Amino acid sequence: MSGTDTTKEPIQALGGGGGPAIILVEPQLAENMGTAARAMYNCGLTDMRLVKPKQDWLSAKALAASSGASEVLKSAGFYESTEDALADRQFVAATTARPRDMIKTVWTPHHAGAELAKRATADTKIGILFGREKSGLKNHDIGLADVIIEAPLNPAYSSLNLAQAVLIVAYQWYQATQASEAEATPYGITRPANKDELNLLFQHLEYELDTCGFLHVEEKRPSMVLNIRAMLQRAALTEQEVRTLHGVVTELRYGRRDEAYDVRSDWKK
Amino acid sequence: MSGTDTTKEPIQALGGGGGPAIILVEPQLAENMGTAARAMYNCGLTDMRLVKPKQDWLSAKALAASSGASEVLKSAGFYESTEDALADRQFVAATTARPRDMIKTVWTPHHAGAELAKRATADTKIGILFGREKSGLKNHDIGLADVIIEAPLNPAYSSLNLAQAVLIVAYQWYQATQASEAEATPYGITRPANKDELNLLFQHLEYELDTCGFLHVEEKRPSMVLNIRAMLQRAALTEQEVRTLHGVVTELRYGRRDEAYDVRSDWKK
Repeated sequence: MSGTDTTKEPIQALGGGGGPAIILVEPQLAENMGTAARAMYNCGLTDMRLVKPKQDWLSAKALAASSGASEVLKSAGFYESTEDALADRQFVAATTARPRDMIKTVWTPHHAGAELAKRATADTKIGILFGREKSGLKNHDIGLADVIIEAPLNPAYSSLNLAQAVLIVAYQWYQATQASEAEATPYGITRPANKDELNLLFQHLEYELDTCGFLHVEEKRPSMVLNIRAMLQRAALTEQEVRTLHGVVTELRYGRRDEAYDVRSDWKK
Repeated sequence: MSGTDTTKEPIQALGGGGGPAIILVEPQLAENMGTAARAMYNCGLTDMRLVKPKQDWLSAKALAASSGASEVLKSAGFYESTEDALADRQFVAATTARPRDMIKTVWTPHHAGAELAKRATADTKIGILFGREKSGLKNHDIGLADVIIEAPLNPAYSSLNLAQAVLIVAYQWYQATQASEAEATPYGITRPANKDELNLLFQHLEYELDTCGFLHVEEKRPSMVLNIRAMLQRAALTEQEVRTLHGVVTELRYGRRDEAYDVRSDWKK
């Protein structure tokens, strides 16, 4: 999943001025602020807000960890309190395990992606709160949020690294704002073979298998032919691959033979 | 999203022997192997395979980075080649940008989660390949895979940290194997108020607003009442909160008054 196309414009996130603000409350490690910035920018988010960070988010360590996303760190805002960081926000989600003593709606990150994208399209300014590495968000911070986002994880080991928590939420946001094809097969200059091309290949192959003797047992021939056809069908061959296979069959059958090789075992190293 | 319940059993991943194997091909940094192990275990995966890692995956740095998931590192297998690491696998996905010169089906991580979970349920042994930090998977490795998994990311900055790539794919796998409610509101010992309780609150509030004079402009009264009711409806109050609000109304109206305060501005600090 590496590879950045520097010729492309960075995503302009929805919601005016950079999509949801990612608010890190009292983050402890500069490196985590850097990797969180990287995860944000991977998902087209640029509005990072730091509430009383414990280390310098512009230190060499933080900038190195942010990799190509140092601009996110450099433009990050510093705030004295979570309230200050949220002042201009209209809808706020807190990422945390569901609190025991507060009644808040809990969304999965996937559901949150869809819901927040919908709100952003309606120009609602969104903030997403992430807590301290060790202890998460305090109840006071959670109380400032409209909803909770909780990622379903291995119940025996659900403690996420800060940047990984940011990534999961930002990734689902980004997916919800993009139309991605769930499955695609990019053919480039070729295309899927049509059935006529495939049938000609079957005819060619079966003719040669007949004449070389592979299909000589009369009663087994029909099922062998069907099986060979089935496996080639399943391969969903392209037109180019069909042409290649014609060549393979011809060369195997009529190509140069070196009788000095034991052709049955020489391919094994 | 912190908090691990140590009383709970770790997830037994599907597919026999730990769900998909996560195969890191020539990972460079011990720390990344540790954080990848953590991301795996967050998502219930335990079968880590390392193809010629450049650093020691049992070093102090790696173990520290794995946080509570050091068992995953300790049980990781070492392999001389990608082929060796895949030998017992029946279906293999390679995580990479779509290759230009090979025709392979490309899945989003979300789609891959569903497809791989389906295969794992049918006891197909799955492997997922992740490439080197700097350069990703080589074409030779990609050629060993049945499908490609490509995460749709900011086209101007799509380079993911290794552990983050592992997290995105493992997270989608885990979601596909779990039935998570997209949205939930856990009520604990209370429950949503019923409409009778809500109507009694409206009556109480409106009676007091009438007697204190807030609703004294006759022609505005109906719309004011409707607006107040609308905002309380929208709050989706619990039975407990309705009782609290009865108390709030009563105390505001009849509670102790200290005429020494300017009650209109004293709440502002």
